[in-house]
Amino acid sequence: MDNNNALPLVILAEQFAKLPGIGMKSAERLAYHVMQMSEGEVRDFADALMNAHQKVHTCAVCQNLTENRLCPICSDPRRDGSTVCVVESPKDISAFERTREYKGVYHVLHGLISPMDNVMPDQLKIKELLTRLDGSVEEVIMATNPTVEGEATAMYISKLIKPLGVKVTRLAFGLPVGGILEYADEVTLYKALENRNEI
Amino acid sequence: MDNNNALPLVILAEQFAKLPGIGMKSAERLAYHVMQMSEGEVRDFADALMNAHQKVHTCAVCQNLTENRLCPICSDPRRDGSTVCVVESPKDISAFERTREYKGVYHVLHGLISPMDNVMPDQLKIKELLTRLDGSVEEVIMATNPTVEGEATAMYISKLIKPLGVKVTRLAFGLPVGGILEYADEVTLYKALENRNEI
Repeated sequence: MDNNNALPLVILAEQFAKLPGIGMKSAERLAYHVMQMSEGEVRDFADALMNAHQKVHTCAVCQNLTENRLCPICSDPRRDGSTVCVVESPKDISAFERTREYKGVYHVLHGLISPMDNVMPDQLKIKELLTRLDGSVEEVIMATNPTVEGEATAMYISKLIKPLGVKVTRLAFGLPVGGILEYADEVTLYKALENRNEI
Repeated sequence: MDNNNALPLVILAEQFAKLPGIGMKSAERLAYHVMQMSEGEVRDFADALMNAHQKVHTCAVCQNLTENRLCPICSDPRRDGSTVCVVESPKDISAFERTREYKGVYHVLHGLISPMDNVMPDQLKIKELLTRLDGSVEEVIMATNPTVEGEATAMYISKLIKPLGVKVTRLAFGLPVGGILEYADEVTLYKALENRNEI
């Protein structure tokens, strides 16, 4: 924004521009939009920001985000604590829960090992995962994304867990259901072929 | 977001999703990003929202956004008050100021006439423009966008101003500088041909 604009508006646009995926042009548009909101709407937005940051923290067991000491999944006695699904972020839990099939519990790493981005194993919630493997856990499912970082993280953690005598599994890779073979990339198709099942 | 996520986070995502151009998926990503910001950063963001809304208001003369009674342009004695450039929004002023050529003043309509969107002339700052035409203004430049609404608004206002004996002009339309003729649309090319100048 140019200096002919009001300073508080420039500051707000700069705040929006700090968010991921929002450039300076979009940030300016959002700042102008805030000017057109009512006083109450803006206050609700500001309160939502502070509330989310102050009231939400990680679950003492699985590191998912929650308002309480334990997240709704860890505090649900119907969930099977012997299977732990390891994911990168809380968003991934939502995806698994939508399947309505998984009855085990989760563990959120809050990131993936990525030396390029300066993310080392000790910055992830790996220690917290290992302390959970006290004998009650029978299987750990590595459910990180099928990317270089996701694979590397799954391999790193599985090497730590296997000596403890816990079964470690990885999500299956193959053709997406409803997908078209012609449009599948080579690696996916190779994985689908390699992991073929007898019918 | 699913109900296994913390409520304040869901509320924050809903606030982000209310902003223009931000869908629910992006809003969730932004809400998660806020969780990773420091307490101070979140407070700065919340303060910027409230400050922009509370401290910024419209200039008493040109309706541009400002912190003071008059905007920096209206309070600058070096600007030529006899030429008023009428624009849709404060963003457009930034664009004109970047040219560093225009020395006159502005008038912000805060919208365009658009019966489809229920925006009628009396919702725009047209009355405020007419009260400025007290004899000191010699030329009004209609600088609304070359869209249906922009054209209609320019026509509507020019019909109100002309009887007052003030010269009304419209921005020139033609090929954009550096543009390629082959890619110009028919209307632009027609305008460029119609408004051709002798060299």
